[in-house]
Amino acid sequence: MKLFNATAPNPRRVRIFLAEKGATLPTTDVNLTEGESRTPDFLAMNSLGHTPVLKLDDGTVITESVAICRFLEETFADPPLFGADQVDRARVEMWNRRMEIEIFNPCGNIAQHTFEFFADKVRQVPEFAAAQRKTVPEKWQWLEGEMSDGREFISGDRFSVADITGMVASGLAEVLEVGVPASCPNLRKWDQRMRARPSWDA
Amino acid sequence: MKLFNATAPNPRRVRIFLAEKGATLPTTDVNLTEGESRTPDFLAMNSLGHTPVLKLDDGTVITESVAICRFLEETFADPPLFGADQVDRARVEMWNRRMEIEIFNPCGNIAQHTFEFFADKVRQVPEFAAAQRKTVPEKWQWLEGEMSDGREFISGDRFSVADITGMVASGLAEVLEVGVPASCPNLRKWDQRMRARPSWDA
Repeated sequence: MKLFNATAPNPRRVRIFLAEKGATLPTTDVNLTEGESRTPDFLAMNSLGHTPVLKLDDGTVITESVAICRFLEETFADPPLFGADQVDRARVEMWNRRMEIEIFNPCGNIAQHTFEFFADKVRQVPEFAAAQRKTVPEKWQWLEGEMSDGREFISGDRFSVADITGMVASGLAEVLEVGVPASCPNLRKWDQRMRARPSWDA
Repeated sequence: MKLFNATAPNPRRVRIFLAEKGATLPTTDVNLTEGESRTPDFLAMNSLGHTPVLKLDDGTVITESVAICRFLEETFADPPLFGADQVDRARVEMWNRRMEIEIFNPCGNIAQHTFEFFADKVRQVPEFAAAQRKTVPEKWQWLEGEMSDGREFISGDRFSVADITGMVASGLAEVLEVGVPASCPNLRKWDQRMRARPSWDA
């Protein structure tokens, strides 16, 4: 199989996932600013023009970072990053979605509705970006409440894909100047632990 | 276990999922317009105040409709709705996310940024709702292109949770007057097939 990946938050989710698995894949770098995800060849793989894309040896194409991670979870079983039993798998899915919907997406919205890169890809509404900028700190504060039980990872006592989504959200939020606030001590400790992992640099 | 559910699109995903499994669960109806998802008792279960919520017999709480469906997939194995093998599972995840991100979420955004119900829950930006209203028909058209291979279901030749997300999106879009357009014949046929399923009325 072959991974088509890029320098962007969603592609980073797959890179961290692979690093945490200790796995590597043959990878083609797609230069987004050069328009390489909008060429006819690329659009034939993913009509949405999004990265990452995983192409299997039989030609099957899997898009969406979480779908690619889920495929790789079955190829590289250890350590499990989507949960270890039925309840854990449901809890990891719950927390991965919470991290994505409540934190990562609002950060992504700020970028998509203000960055020049997205001007020809998204019907930009700067007022929406401004509103989302006010929302992100409230969401960090909500998450601080959830983490106040002192647990080590987002979904419990084991590192999971929910932490990966959180890592990518934290990195993006920092660039956008809405990173984990000082008013969230438990979350700050989690953030420091995540930044100390070798996979942070993936 | 016990399901706390409501009359809303995300809760409907779980209802259709259960109907497709031929399964039932003890259920408490949460009246959203009466504020029953914002009571101290409910917030103690789900600090986000969202439905659905699944409470297991040991007190474990699972939130997020897709996480609940994923838990139920392991309790009620047949028919598989998240895919039947590794590639199928990845493809279903890909398509469930595409249906959610590309179609269901823009419809949800129209509602959340214009409906009075959300005025105290979301920092509403009506200009964003107006922009999303223009986006939805373009996304249906994109999906029509994907469905032009004549396949019966969203992710291939088997009904899956991706169809369920599409059903809920189609129903919501219809209410918002951005339903599947006449310019999308393959999608219209899929939509008619979905509306003919007994689970449509769940």
